Parts: sequence; C-alpha cells; structure tokens
Amino acid sequence: MTHPMTKEDFPVSNIRHFLEPGPIVLVSSQWQAQTNIMTMGWHTVMAFTPSLLGCVIDAGNHSHSMVRNSGECVVNIPSASLVDTVVGIGNCSGSEVEKFKAFKLTPGKSEQVGAPRVEECYASFECRLHDDAMIERYNLFIFEVVKAHVAPLADEEESLHYRGMGEFMLSGRSIDRTELFKPSMLV
Amino acid sequence: MTHPMTKEDFPVSNIRHFLEPGPIVLVSSQWQAQTNIMTMGWHTVMAFTPSLLGCVIDAGNHSHSMVRNSGECVVNIPSASLVDTVVGIGNCSGSEVEKFKAFKLTPGKSEQVGAPRVEECYASFECRLHDDAMIERYNLFIFEVVKAHVAPLADEEESLHYRGMGEFMLSGRSIDRTELFKPSMLV
Repeated sequence: MTHPMTKEDFPVSNIRHFLEPGPIVLVSSQWQAQTNIMTMGWHTVMAFTPSLLGCVIDAGNHSHSMVRNSGECVVNIPSASLVDTVVGIGNCSGSEVEKFKAFKLTPGKSEQVGAPRVEECYASFECRLHDDAMIERYNLFIFEVVKAHVAPLADEEESLHYRGMGEFMLSGRSIDRTELFKPSMLV
Repeated sequence: MTHPMTKEDFPVSNIRHFLEPGPIVLVSSQWQAQTNIMTMGWHTVMAFTPSLLGCVIDAGNHSHSMVRNSGECVVNIPSASLVDTVVGIGNCSGSEVEKFKAFKLTPGKSEQVGAPRVEECYASFECRLHDDAMIERYNLFIFEVVKAHVAPLADEEESLHYRGMGEFMLSGRSIDRTELFKPSMLV
C-alpha cells in the first residue's frame, strides 16, 4: 500500500511513542528549489519538552547539506509495506535522482517548516535544527520537533527496523506492563 | 528464562545489528564499591569505527553520576522474557536498591572496563566515555564500544522496544532485501 495517508495533529512531547522503538525513518528536506528524501536509522529521542531528536546524517549524504543549509527537515515513519521504497531511496543519491518523483511519493505541505512531508508515511514530524554544535564532529543534528502528524490507525502499522546487511526486523506484538509501573514513571 | 547466557566475542564495528533496531537496554555501571543497573531506551549508533554510541542518561538517574565519574558502563540487551525485570529496574533507584541482588541478576567480569556485565542478557557491549561535551546540556553520553559479547543464538531472541506508558513492542519477523542493495551499501 503506497497511498497518501490522512494524519491528525499529535502532541510533540509524545513522539517517543513512535520513535523510541527505533524504526527506520525517511528524512525529507528542501533547499532552494530542490527536495530530497533519505533513509535513516541512527536517531534517538533526547528530551520531551522541548521535543528533541538527535539524528546522525552522514556528510556523504546529499541531504546533509540540504538540512544543514535550511535548518529544517521532516522525519517520516514508513510502514513495512514501503520496504522496497525505503531501500530504493537509501540506494541512490539526491544529487542524481529526484526522489519524490522517482519513487512516486507525494510531497505534502508542512505547517512549520519548508521541507515537505512524505504523505505515504503514517507519521510525520516537522523538525527545526535546535543545536548544530555536534554536526561537524559527529554529523549529529539535534532537532526540535515543532509539529507532529500521525495517522489515526498508526498503532496498527508495522514498522521497519534495520539490522544492516540488507536485513530488516519488523515490529511485532505489543505487551502492556502498566501495572508494574509507579504512577510517576508512566510517561 | 533468567539464566546466565554464554557469549562470544563480536566485532565492535557491527553492534548496529543489535542496537539500530532500537531495543530497550540495561546499562550496568560501577563506581567505587557500588554497582548499579538502569533501564534505558534513548540511544543511537553514531559511527562504525570507532564504534560510537550516543546514550541519554537523565541526571535524575542514580547511574548518571556513576557513569560520569567512572567514565564507563556496559550496555546489555535483555530478551523479552526479562520484561518484568526490565520494568522493575526502571522503577526503583540505585540510591535505595542494590539491583543485581534485588533482581537476582549475575554480574559478569568485563574485559576492558570496571563495570560488570549483566550475564542474563544476550548481548553486552563494554563502553568507555568518548566525549562528555554534551552531558551538561543534554545528558548525552557519547561512548566508544571497546568490547562486544554476543550469545551465539542472539538472532533468535525477541527484543523489547519501549513506547512509553507501560507499553512495549516486541521484535517480530525479519525480512531480507539484500538483492535491492548496491554492493557498496551492504554494511
């Protein structure tokens, strides 16, 4: 299924629900007249409020300079049904390929940033560069998520988790351990 | 199943195979005469060589100062069968509880660091603090993984992925897309 998905506003302080499990994401960007998409697996939630997300975007990626120059991107989560698109995007460069067109993806207008969302993904998090201090040394971009969009049935989607060497783990069943938590730890 | 697992040497440059999918981990530490364990879900691979791992360890955790003072820890991956232990460890403090004893876990001697491994986990990565520049501002520890130990059947273990609010996602099936990759991208 690679059709655009309708999404609703979601609290930026709770994106950990979707990102802490570690899915592969598609990072969309725009700089001047060009858009681009890259596949990215090296990211971590860093804070709830402000909603901070650390992402390693190697300098060898065409997206690196686009995100750095614009100070913006959108982090999108694709469902497992998009796996071949995810791999295709990760195996070509935005310096040669116009990826939205080549992979038949729909650029959606973002609300807070210039970079387009990828409408076929079930979650899209608009990001603004919060701290560039670690880009030079580690290619680590620290973003603030300024707007979050999530499909109503996002929890039913399978996510993709990359293991390297062409292998993906898919998300499995969920279990609830709420009853073992102190109330103050339930965030 | 909470028995100690025999592990073998594993290449530190390939820990992404186990960590990039985003499992919850147990961070074990030692400072002076005290050991501790914490549950942690905010981490990302940052580089292959040296093998760098970024981990957010909130200053509110007893482990924060122990890891900071010693400059060392072990990042251990528990299988899903340890979920109640993982939750228990995350819901008490090392300032009050001696966690190895309280949770009947076996401290194993590490080779490169003073912090003990958690023998019941299927993978243990010995870490040395590589860069403390982002600890003050973001509680972000950048570690170098200096030694990796992995159980021979680790790929058959289910991992735990935290979503917040007491809910865990478990790892599901794997799929192979090697044939869609450029050879140079197969790392």
